[in-house]
Formats: sequence, structure tokens, C-alpha cells
Amino acid sequence: MPKIVDHDHQKKLIAEATWRVIQFEGMEGATVRKIAKEAGLSLGALRHYFSTQNELLVYAMNLVKDRVIARISKIAASDLQPKEKVLNIILEIIPINEETMAEMEVWFTFIFYSRKKGDVFGTDSDGIFLAIDNIFTFLEKHQLLRKNLHIDIEKEKLYAIIDGLAIHAMLEPSRVNYELVSSVISHHLNLICIE
Amino acid sequence: MPKIVDHDHQKKLIAEATWRVIQFEGMEGATVRKIAKEAGLSLGALRHYFSTQNELLVYAMNLVKDRVIARISKIAASDLQPKEKVLNIILEIIPINEETMAEMEVWFTFIFYSRKKGDVFGTDSDGIFLAIDNIFTFLEKHQLLRKNLHIDIEKEKLYAIIDGLAIHAMLEPSRVNYELVSSVISHHLNLICIE
Repeated sequence: MPKIVDHDHQKKLIAEATWRVIQFEGMEGATVRKIAKEAGLSLGALRHYFSTQNELLVYAMNLVKDRVIARISKIAASDLQPKEKVLNIILEIIPINEETMAEMEVWFTFIFYSRKKGDVFGTDSDGIFLAIDNIFTFLEKHQLLRKNLHIDIEKEKLYAIIDGLAIHAMLEPSRVNYELVSSVISHHLNLICIE
Repeated sequence: MPKIVDHDHQKKLIAEATWRVIQFEGMEGATVRKIAKEAGLSLGALRHYFSTQNELLVYAMNLVKDRVIARISKIAASDLQPKEKVLNIILEIIPINEETMAEMEVWFTFIFYSRKKGDVFGTDSDGIFLAIDNIFTFLEKHQLLRKNLHIDIEKEKLYAIIDGLAIHAMLEPSRVNYELVSSVISHHLNLICIE
């Protein structure tokens, strides 16, 4: 089915063009016209793939999520030790290379915009919090969590550390680099996990 | 000198109008024309106070910073116990009421914009990191820090927790409310401080 493959591939290229426009112009600048131009398509050709701007934006945002989930699933399926696995999954969420930084920037722009305009896209923004919930369930299952932890507070704290580091890595990439991010996360995991 | 007082007062009113425009339209929407309209002034009257858009935006952003610093200084000068003082200062940075939430939203919008466009305003964004540095010096001076802390990692972690909670308080104000924020921060301070 080469035609269908091409169709999906073309949609992904358009989504990536959308990310670039959002990254440089903000959500306000992400008009169908500009996205078509960035993707090297006519407005008519773009409409063939996405009939509304909303449909296009939702697709572009879900693709960010899908890629992160795909990378996380790969780590989850690997034969790393449980604690190493969790560390690597968290490092996959925090942007520490150009690709993941672009994703995170688009994601934050989108989340801020949704919040301002009301949730016009019908997507949810709590993906990371759910991931953290799963991480604690996983650590618990492997009996790696220290006793007497206040789990609800620990979840909120880890969630804050991840998003805080993500913001700082975006804003100050030379200071908040891979080494710094991984040492903060390792240090924190060692606090909540047994040896 | 009533004239000078009025001049300063008017500049503050214009800065507040600027915040509202940034909050609802983003930095891209913060044109001198829209700000003048929001402040109920003619373009000419606004230009009497700020000759360029850049001058106005820098003033509006520094005013956010000044207000936070003023509130922090008031707490620093109070007769609270050192650890209580630190807790209250941190809670002053994280937006947990409508006023501080608007400030934080404007601040993040500004920081993101500056990052995207290059630092066109010549202001620095590391005010909170400096505040954290001061907090650790203060806790050290009062011999409240636990032994064997990895101070550099602890600073980055507290910085991430503060900005992470700030983002979550902005995006999910009903879940990440005053009680949750203060219990996460208290819990964390108890980890790094002696009893």
C-alpha cells in the first residue's frame, strides 16, 4: 500500500513543519498558510491532509507525545536494571539534545497556549504525571522504594524536578546539560530508593 | 513633588496594562498600540512615558522582579525562625494566588520570548537561582544544613522544584494549590535541614 504509507509520511513531514513554525513564531504564528509554506506545500495540498487548523495542531502535538512514548517503551523493554531503567526513562523526558529540546519547546508552547485559550484541542497535558505514577508503581513492585516515604509528596516532587530541569535545560542549555541533569536525577533516585 | 509621584504612578499603571496584554495576547501581541489602549491612553501620551516599546517592556519586567524582591525582603526582615523564613520566601516565589500567578505567567512568557529572540532586553533571568544561592548561604550561616550534602546538586534540585511547582501551579491551580506546594517545600527543607 505505497499510497497509504506516503500519506502517513507526508502527514509527519507536515507535523514537523508545524513544530518548526511553533518553535520560531509561537502558537499565535502557527497559521495554516505559514505551515504550508514551511512544508513546501500549497494551501490546497495541505488541506488534502488536514481539513482544519485544529486537526493539524492536534496531530502535531500527539506526534510529540507518541515519539516520547516510543522512546520510553524501548527503554522499558530493555534489559537494564530497574533503577537504571527509571533513570533512563526520566532522562528521555528531559530535553538534553537538540531533537528533544525542540519537542519540549513545542510541547510547553502548546500547553501554555491551551491553558490561555481553554482546552480547545481536547488533549490532556498530564502525560508526565501519569508516567511518574507508573515509575513509582514499578519501583514499588521491584521493592526498591525506601520505607516511610510520603508517596504523594514524592510524586509531586519528582514531577516538579523533571519539569523544572526541563525548563532550565531549555533556557540554559550550556549550564543545565546532560551531566548536570543526570547527576541531579541519579542523586534523587538514590534518596528514594534503597541501595 | 506631586508631578514626579504621578509620573511614577502612571508608569506603574502602564506596566500593569502591559502585563495584562502579555497575559492574554502573548509577547507577540504586546504592541505599543494595544498596551496604550489597555491603559486607556493615547499613543502619544504613552510615548511621553516610554519612548520605545523595548523601554516599556524592560520596565514592565523589572517591575515584576522588584515586587517579588520587595515581598521577599519583607519576610527576610521579619522575626520568623530561619527555617520558617526560608519556607515563606520560597512560597513567595511560587505563584499561589491570582496576583503572583499573573506575575509568574508574564515572567515565563517574557523569559521564553527572550530566549527565542535572543536577549533583546539586556535583563538577566537567573534571579531565582541567585535567591537559592542566598538561601543556602543563609541556612549554612545558621548551621541548619545537614552534613554531607552535595550542595551544588541540592541547589539545582531546589531550583528545579521551585520552577517545576511554579509551572504546575500555573497550569493546574486547583490540584497544585497552596497546601500542596507548601507541604512539598516543607518536606524538602526538612530533608536538607537538621531538626
